[in-house]
Amino acid sequence: MNKRKIAVVITARPSYSRVKTVLRAIQEHPGLELQLIVAASALLDRYGSAVNYIEKDGFAIAAKVFNVLEGENLTAAAKTTGIGILELSTVFDNLAPDIVVTVADRFETMATAVSASYMNIPLAHIQGGEVTGNIDEKVRHAITKLADYHFTASDKARERVVKLGENPDFVFNTGCPSIDIASEIKSLSALNFDPYEKYGGVGAKPDLSNGYLVVMQHPVTTEYKDSRKHIGETLAAIAALDIPTLWFWPNVDAGADGTSTGIRSFRESNRLGHVHFFKNMEGDDFLVLLNNSLGLIGNSSVGIRECAYLGVPVINIGSRQNKRDRGNNVIDVDYDRDEIATSIHKMIKSHHPQPSQVYGGGNAGKEIAGLLATLELRFHKTITY
Amino acid sequence: MNKRKIAVVITARPSYSRVKTVLRAIQEHPGLELQLIVAASALLDRYGSAVNYIEKDGFAIAAKVFNVLEGENLTAAAKTTGIGILELSTVFDNLAPDIVVTVADRFETMATAVSASYMNIPLAHIQGGEVTGNIDEKVRHAITKLADYHFTASDKARERVVKLGENPDFVFNTGCPSIDIASEIKSLSALNFDPYEKYGGVGAKPDLSNGYLVVMQHPVTTEYKDSRKHIGETLAAIAALDIPTLWFWPNVDAGADGTSTGIRSFRESNRLGHVHFFKNMEGDDFLVLLNNSLGLIGNSSVGIRECAYLGVPVINIGSRQNKRDRGNNVIDVDYDRDEIATSIHKMIKSHHPQPSQVYGGGNAGKEIAGLLATLELRFHKTITY
Amino acid sequence: MNKRKIAVVITARPSYSRVKTVLRAIQEHPGLELQLIVAASALLDRYGSAVNYIEKDGFAIAAKVFNVLEGENLTAAAKTTGIGILELSTVFDNLAPDIVVTVADRFETMATAVSASYMNIPLAHIQGGEVTGNIDEKVRHAITKLADYHFTASDKARERVVKLGENPDFVFNTGCPSIDIASEIKSLSALNFDPYEKYGGVGAKPDLSNGYLVVMQHPVTTEYKDSRKHIGETLAAIAALDIPTLWFWPNVDAGADGTSTGIRSFRESNRLGHVHFFKNMEGDDFLVLLNNSLGLIGNSSVGIRECAYLGVPVINIGSRQNKRDRGNNVIDVDYDRDEIATSIHKMIKSHHPQPSQVYGGGNAGKEIAGLLATLELRFHKTITY
Amino acid sequence: MNKRKIAVVITARPSYSRVKTVLRAIQEHPGLELQLIVAASALLDRYGSAVNYIEKDGFAIAAKVFNVLEGENLTAAAKTTGIGILELSTVFDNLAPDIVVTVADRFETMATAVSASYMNIPLAHIQGGEVTGNIDEKVRHAITKLADYHFTASDKARERVVKLGENPDFVFNTGCPSIDIASEIKSLSALNFDPYEKYGGVGAKPDLSNGYLVVMQHPVTTEYKDSRKHIGETLAAIAALDIPTLWFWPNVDAGADGTSTGIRSFRESNRLGHVHFFKNMEGDDFLVLLNNSLGLIGNSSVGIRECAYLGVPVINIGSRQNKRDRGNNVIDVDYDRDEIATSIHKMIKSHHPQPSQVYGGGNAGKEIAGLLATLELRFHKTITY
Repeated sequence: MNKRKIAVVITARPSYSRVKTVLRAIQEHPGLELQLIVAASALLDRYGSAVNYIEKDGFAIAAKVFNVLEGENLTAAAKTTGIGILELSTVFDNLAPDIVVTVADRFETMATAVSASYMNIPLAHIQGGEVTGNIDEKVRHAITKLADYHFTASDKARERVVKLGENPDFVFNTGCPSIDIASEIKSLSALNFDPYEKYGGVGAKPDLSNGYLVVMQHPVTTEYKDSRKHIGETLAAIAALDIPTLWFWPNVDAGADGTSTGIRSFRESNRLGHVHFFKNMEGDDFLVLLNNSLGLIGNSSVGIRECAYLGVPVINIGSRQNKRDRGNNVIDVDYDRDEIATSIHKMIKSHHPQPSQVYGGGNAGKEIAGLLATLELRFHKTITY
Repeated sequence: MNKRKIAVVITARPSYSRVKTVLRAIQEHPGLELQLIVAASALLDRYGSAVNYIEKDGFAIAAKVFNVLEGENLTAAAKTTGIGILELSTVFDNLAPDIVVTVADRFETMATAVSASYMNIPLAHIQGGEVTGNIDEKVRHAITKLADYHFTASDKARERVVKLGENPDFVFNTGCPSIDIASEIKSLSALNFDPYEKYGGVGAKPDLSNGYLVVMQHPVTTEYKDSRKHIGETLAAIAALDIPTLWFWPNVDAGADGTSTGIRSFRESNRLGHVHFFKNMEGDDFLVLLNNSLGLIGNSSVGIRECAYLGVPVINIGSRQNKRDRGNNVIDVDYDRDEIATSIHKMIKSHHPQPSQVYGGGNAGKEIAGLLATLELRFHKTITY
Repeated sequence: MNKRKIAVVITARPSYSRVKTVLRAIQEHPGLELQLIVAASALLDRYGSAVNYIEKDGFAIAAKVFNVLEGENLTAAAKTTGIGILELSTVFDNLAPDIVVTVADRFETMATAVSASYMNIPLAHIQGGEVTGNIDEKVRHAITKLADYHFTASDKARERVVKLGENPDFVFNTGCPSIDIASEIKSLSALNFDPYEKYGGVGAKPDLSNGYLVVMQHPVTTEYKDSRKHIGETLAAIAALDIPTLWFWPNVDAGADGTSTGIRSFRESNRLGHVHFFKNMEGDDFLVLLNNSLGLIGNSSVGIRECAYLGVPVINIGSRQNKRDRGNNVIDVDYDRDEIATSIHKMIKSHHPQPSQVYGGGNAGKEIAGLLATLELRFHKTITY
Repeated sequence: MNKRKIAVVITARPSYSRVKTVLRAIQEHPGLELQLIVAASALLDRYGSAVNYIEKDGFAIAAKVFNVLEGENLTAAAKTTGIGILELSTVFDNLAPDIVVTVADRFETMATAVSASYMNIPLAHIQGGEVTGNIDEKVRHAITKLADYHFTASDKARERVVKLGENPDFVFNTGCPSIDIASEIKSLSALNFDPYEKYGGVGAKPDLSNGYLVVMQHPVTTEYKDSRKHIGETLAAIAALDIPTLWFWPNVDAGADGTSTGIRSFRESNRLGHVHFFKNMEGDDFLVLLNNSLGLIGNSSVGIRECAYLGVPVINIGSRQNKRDRGNNVIDVDYDRDEIATSIHKMIKSHHPQPSQVYGGGNAGKEIAGLLATLELRFHKTITY
């Protein structure tokens, strides 16, 4: 019997981390053949070179596509997507996959969705149906309308996809595959690696044995002109505290320059004797780091998803995760140094929050692979109302 | 006061015809400045050079963008869209419009929608919310999820857009602007031009004074491999009749080659002494032609919209207009020469159908311009559920 | 030992015919691995789908790239080249060839040359150093300045490449590989196939047993606005004669529409009872056809090259082959129906011209493969003066 | 009388500085209209945002084109060029210039040259005919073969362009327009601005009153894997001295990341108490800075051109300026910290070199504008041998 060819397009480091267990499950499934395509910021050093981790993890890469246009403004984001369509179409034409899989809602994932759906290749979308209230949301729901199969991360997300007029027979709440990895490391009660030694980075090397904070704050596309001001509030709050802190650079997006410049410039003119900066970290290690931390500060979706499952407290800043379903581990605050600082104090004093399975129970990768192997191939659909 | 700059992107001859009254109303509105962008097949001779009509109608063109990739297959359609995004982003960056308007659901209109929405330019969509059941539908609803304002052509379409999670305050049933033109010519009770003389074309020149049929059949994207077979059924049905017939070539789409080749090859080997072939016709003249015909055969949306308003009978073939709201002027048939022929006979014998305002009453252009001038500028939205 | 990977990019039907023996020799060479990339008009039905012949001839295709932008004007030619660079760079990045080979001087071959040279991949150019006096010449010599190895078709061409400042150690007169095929069929003294049956086509089917003419006339890029007028002169000359004629459609180029439209329109309104039209023909068969014909009319380079070797008389019309080295088989004429007709009469009456080896002796494919296997890999060069 | 429309494409900060006097002369010429197009790294903050200087200098911008693909590797350089062609063709199609001007030999200038020449727009090339021995040279001579007019910077360069087969009637030694600016500031015997205050930057602020060095070292395309090592030698040499030094970041090129990372990492781990780093400086100020310095270290072409005219001594490192014509102000050294340090000592002790007019006398801008206004429009050429 011929194996179904499943093309998965990875365009960023966090997307790779999120679906690694899906890739592994596809690779191990006897009825599936994985065609892994690595594109966009996943190929770029400045954004953590996901491609290196992918190769280290033993995945064969079927094609690489450089398509990030410089500028880090909105025009460049649009053009990056255009180039992506142009080139992914050629890649799909040459690889002839049976199903294409696209992940989440980064702007350039639209390229995968347009190419596949226009070429009548059945399109599977992981993580549709969520609500965030920014450009990601336009992208996410538009992709839902282009996709033929939907693998959502929560029950509410599944409901929304169905409300969007999708046939319920093709909408599955598999949970988020990122939880699969969290479930593997959940039992580790201490750091099993030295972050400074393993990941380098710059800045101070505070002692981590008495607890530490983790910061990860990305620019918000619809507010990109303010990204430098926004990061400034967080920097000021952290600088005023004396708690060991591990800070991660943002990933590529319109506005990353504002965020990056803000951090760089603050470092030039301020003492940050208790802060270390990392460019990136392997997903597993990052989860272990969080699992053993005092809590996460910023606006990463990891705070909403994996941290809910792990029971790690989170100070969530600003609008980026607005309206995403939450466990009870999250304190939401504004871009405001005082509010951020106060919440951190509160977080450290309070008890650990209860873990929650709102984003799944740890078996998403295998479930998705199983569905990809058996679902009827379809690319012709109509709205249900 | 500064005028609002309204960029409208026209990518095909039928789209131009459809929104001509909108363009005129924008141009005449004291609070608006029209930035007309002509792209894709609207620039190509093979597809009727809409650009020539646009210039003849006195519209100034702000930018032209050639982006149709050859191949007339699905890969080429995807790549055409990618190039469109790449280039329209530059055009928008240079023209800096306040609002971008995109029309209907042709595959390449997605380029307009992605560029504008990614660049945080408020996006207006004309003709969302319709149901057709093919790739156009994926495109149409995906654009709805990217758009900030919606001008639908019918009440049912407006309802669907709202169900898709759009804020009802920004969804307006203006009717279809194509009906504006139909309303202008409705009273003409005879042809006011000689089609052979004015539009050339090839083939026989049957006498039109005792009634004639009009044929316009486009390939269907999701069935493009069968486009040659499908057109063959219609050709056979028409060849077997002895009724004067005016036949129009299809517009650009994956599969146009199949349809075109089918027609060309049939002509080489068959007598078609009662059929004349046209490459294209100005929208007004085409409506006058329909208004005085025995009926329209094929799968053009003109049969569903303008012909409903005018009360012209239509034999609608195949799946292309599936589920579109209909007046009572339409007989639906399969790709089957016998069924087509039988229906034509029936159509000719029966009385004229009642006109219907299901697609609007003739004032859409001005209504849309009025809304564009006054609606709050917004590009940030969230799903309503 | 690792085989050297040799990427050859084929962008048009005539280029494929020209280098088929090179491809075969690379494939058969123990030290080489062929990476065949098929792009541009070589993939398009309208231009003879070289890709079908390539597959029929048993070559494996490593990648296909659709990059022809519609418009058939000069803007489209430029954009086709830009898309070609964008996509071929990705293909080269993924295939990692040791040497890239580009053929001749069609506009889109510049894409191959820019991608390879910019990526520091040694670039071999087949057929540099010729003189024609139109845009092809700008392209051809610019590619020479980007290329690292040069395989010219004649001694004079080799001299010119050296004068252009190229290191003589890397400039080789191998002769033109198209002559290799001519040498294989030279001895056939009669048609070994029925052209009507094997290649279809349209029009009359004149009896070929008492001699026939072959016509192949392409538009000239720098004169593309006149292409319809130019083809009209040839059509008029042929129409006025009563000699069986086999006519071939032009290949893709700015202006092909003018030429094609000219032919199509002439056929609608004129009797051409002695002319048959072909879309394309396999290279070998075409040479057999020429070898048994009364002569070739038009502006194809086949008339200058293969016909010189075969001793087939040629009426060469207009500027397209200006200044190309000639054997004594060529009569040059202007775009003028009378001059064309007169020359045809003269040609038919006179004796067959002497064959000439000005474009090589029939071993170019193997010579080129041998050089590709042994030449020092280099991409760093400097002008010699 | 209609003015001739002259489109000039600026793709990088140094190119802008180089041709500023040409732009001004075109703007002031009664028979010319300037169409200024700003593209590539000239729009990017990371590379000094030439666009800001252009606007500050009062030039109106006809179109902006973002086309730099991220990656800073050779694949990205090729793709940047492809996107440039795709988009510049649209810009030229819309602006319809009479002549297009391209500057020098950066990789992306090929996009300007291909678009213009393919579209039959007469192409003028400033600064052809020079010899450097790297990829720039392939680009430069290929552009010469695409160009219709040549404005060279030296007599030797003019001779080479003629040897390349160009018609001598269209090859003019106008001198380099960068010398025009040097001639304006030559008489200033002291700094007329405070570089720290006016240009910010980071690092120490050494006292400049007793003399200072200037460093500007770019990566070399063909050696880009070594760019970090190469910059390391220069950093070590400068670190070991105790001479006030003003260091400029490199411009965009494959390998800029190596150079930039090298500088950044050296700064993290070394004391550089006498070195200040600038991102960029306006051209005039930079020349004043050089004119009052002890000398320039690095591989910038400014050292070869303007410094020759001004009589400023230069330590030229590595292969980047290989074979460029020199005045007697240049000491050539290898990538070697000792050799660099020794040469600096020698340079400081010796007398100032004699100024030289090898790159022109200061009137290039006006000469070029005059030629653009009067030269016969042509795009059809043939090689002279």
